[in-house]
Amino acid sequence: MSSRKIFAGGPVATMDGDAPYGLLPDGAVAVADGLIAWVGAASDVPTAFEGYEKHDLKGRLITPALIDCHTHVVYGGNRAREFEMRLQGATYEEVARAGGGIVSTVKATRAASLDELVQDALPRVDAMIAEGVSTIEIKSGYGLDLETELRMLRAARQIAILRQIDVQTTYLGAHATPPEYKGREDAYIDEVVLPALDDAHAEGLVDAVDGFCEGIAFQPHHIARVFDAAKALGLPVKLHAEQLSNLGGAKLAASYGALSADHIEYLDEDGVIAMADAGTIGVVLPGAFYTLRETQKPPIDLLRQHNVPIALATDCNPGSSPLTSLLLTMNMASTLFRLTPEESLAGVTRNAARALGLADRGVVAQGLRADLAIWDVSHPSELAYRIGFNPLHTRIFGGELCSA
Amino acid sequence: MSSRKIFAGGPVATMDGDAPYGLLPDGAVAVADGLIAWVGAASDVPTAFEGYEKHDLKGRLITPALIDCHTHVVYGGNRAREFEMRLQGATYEEVARAGGGIVSTVKATRAASLDELVQDALPRVDAMIAEGVSTIEIKSGYGLDLETELRMLRAARQIAILRQIDVQTTYLGAHATPPEYKGREDAYIDEVVLPALDDAHAEGLVDAVDGFCEGIAFQPHHIARVFDAAKALGLPVKLHAEQLSNLGGAKLAASYGALSADHIEYLDEDGVIAMADAGTIGVVLPGAFYTLRETQKPPIDLLRQHNVPIALATDCNPGSSPLTSLLLTMNMASTLFRLTPEESLAGVTRNAARALGLADRGVVAQGLRADLAIWDVSHPSELAYRIGFNPLHTRIFGGELCSA
Ligand SMILES: [Zn+2]
Ligand SMILES: [Zn+2]
Repeated sequence: MSSRKIFAGGPVATMDGDAPYGLLPDGAVAVADGLIAWVGAASDVPTAFEGYEKHDLKGRLITPALIDCHTHVVYGGNRAREFEMRLQGATYEEVARAGGGIVSTVKATRAASLDELVQDALPRVDAMIAEGVSTIEIKSGYGLDLETELRMLRAARQIAILRQIDVQTTYLGAHATPPEYKGREDAYIDEVVLPALDDAHAEGLVDAVDGFCEGIAFQPHHIARVFDAAKALGLPVKLHAEQLSNLGGAKLAASYGALSADHIEYLDEDGVIAMADAGTIGVVLPGAFYTLRETQKPPIDLLRQHNVPIALATDCNPGSSPLTSLLLTMNMASTLFRLTPEESLAGVTRNAARALGLADRGVVAQGLRADLAIWDVSHPSELAYRIGFNPLHTRIFGGELCSA
Repeated sequence: MSSRKIFAGGPVATMDGDAPYGLLPDGAVAVADGLIAWVGAASDVPTAFEGYEKHDLKGRLITPALIDCHTHVVYGGNRAREFEMRLQGATYEEVARAGGGIVSTVKATRAASLDELVQDALPRVDAMIAEGVSTIEIKSGYGLDLETELRMLRAARQIAILRQIDVQTTYLGAHATPPEYKGREDAYIDEVVLPALDDAHAEGLVDAVDGFCEGIAFQPHHIARVFDAAKALGLPVKLHAEQLSNLGGAKLAASYGALSADHIEYLDEDGVIAMADAGTIGVVLPGAFYTLRETQKPPIDLLRQHNVPIALATDCNPGSSPLTSLLLTMNMASTLFRLTPEESLAGVTRNAARALGLADRGVVAQGLRADLAIWDVSHPSELAYRIGFNPLHTRIFGGELCSA
């Protein structure tokens, strides 16, 4: 297949510039050598692109490929039985006694081989790819011991080899305290989190460092220790912050110049301002909000007011968000958090790229990666509007057409 | 392909009998001539089935094929622009002035040819089929004139010819009053609803008759007129009832021996008892509840208490539920209405069949239609647990394996 192609004959939502969706009603996109060579109105295509292989959109919409900037897609087992127990009326304690909760995922993940972790994750990743996703972030955090944390990150790297997708890895040793360290958070950080970070980094497995700052997880002073180590290694940080309460996590993250603060249901204006000043993206995770039947919504108006870009992600995980659809995430963000369809699409393209610190994708602009999605819709608002329907026609990854 | 097959090597959720899910942990299902010839434990397969073509489940789960018992999947246009306007802060009046609301769908549906209605609906139907759905109900109700109501029902019958799916048609002339009859509901019933019902019935287009009983639609005395006509034609009835308020619609429907009362958020115990006495199924529609951000939940506990079977459906429609995933509907019913995963699966199999008056499907039992679904899951609770993920492996329609 030629590496030089031009797509024309339909609208292009560039997600760039001042027009809503950066929309070119009758646009054209030229790609060469994996990059976007040109984008503009179909009537303005320079003669230099005349020799490019022509692809007629037949009225279909082009957008940037989608980006899922917060997932825990690599894990062992599932939590369907726990989901069932809760709906049968079991208390939190009964579920815990039956081996439920995050501990059950840690157990199953530790028991899984590298190949099992990869094979279990692939159907979930394939579901994302089928919806036009070309970049996903994958976190560790269900190993909570050195070997398994590294194995999870190796599985994430394997997925990028086995599929036409770019994977950004995030080390999340500070996700929960494992049973063997219960009540000894500092010892866990000293003996596991920091050594595993060093080893994972040395092996090239870490693109960013994350933590879970919450009453049920780690206190800000614990997180600060992990972030200091990340800083020393030159790694960017991000944080699960203000999901169930306000511990000032977003402000702490911003003080480290974090890429993003994620969940942020209980974020206050102080935190929003700190994020705005630091250029930290707000990542909202409506799948977890929905599953946990949370009623406290992220402060969308404050984020808008202070120009903090909002990204969305599936938070794909076996407990609080067994969600693999980024399109459904867009609908949930619009329905539950009242994001406009344009904000929802920006949240899985332009702003999701920023949340991963990636300046080379997320909008349709000259010189960026030719990661695109072609949709059987006539207007970009349709992407957030439908529920549980996938209108993807073709995915383009690094300038090449993909079968799925 | 042989019409005589036996499936074994995995669990079978028969949805029949006293065990949870009617589960046979190591089951076998024999099919012949489109029907289920035998079902039971793999160790008990009679020698009569030795010559059947063997299919190894390899640990996968078999369930009855899914049934979507309440859809408006045939319609013209879409309402993405209206969805966007609302999220941009437009008032109900502004949306109406911009041509939004049900009137816009009526306009687009009237403007669509039979072939356009069919071609527009097929991708939505295909999304349902891809999740193991083998029977769908399709309503008219966006024509609101004689010609278009009939055209919608003809489109529904066409879909059953073009796809390997069984379609049950429902005449819903009493869905809304069209602009030309505004404030003259009785004239609309006299001049359109009843004549169109007669014509549609004469053409063999009507399997059941429905109405929308609500302050914004028709009063009980209007619905009674439509139901009297249905009764005279020997057609079963069902009703959109108690969605936004309690007008006693479910009780009225029950007095006509209705198949189902649907939505029922505002249903009271009186109505539940009337439904129980009449054998009327309660159909809950979590997609509409979710989209409208309704807070009043259907009285699930009362329905359980009085043994009213609960069915679920997508309510697939362009306004209040642009939802095409019955698996997501199961997750929503469990998450939002607290149905157990077993109740959610019964709601799209056994009870959905009852809501359509179909005694020949919905459970895996000898003599019933061989409409089955094979899933890449090990336990049936996984079907309601995941969000936006489709684990279908194979669909069996009338005893034949389908590609999707
Ligand atoms: Zn997370
Ligand atoms: Zn309906």
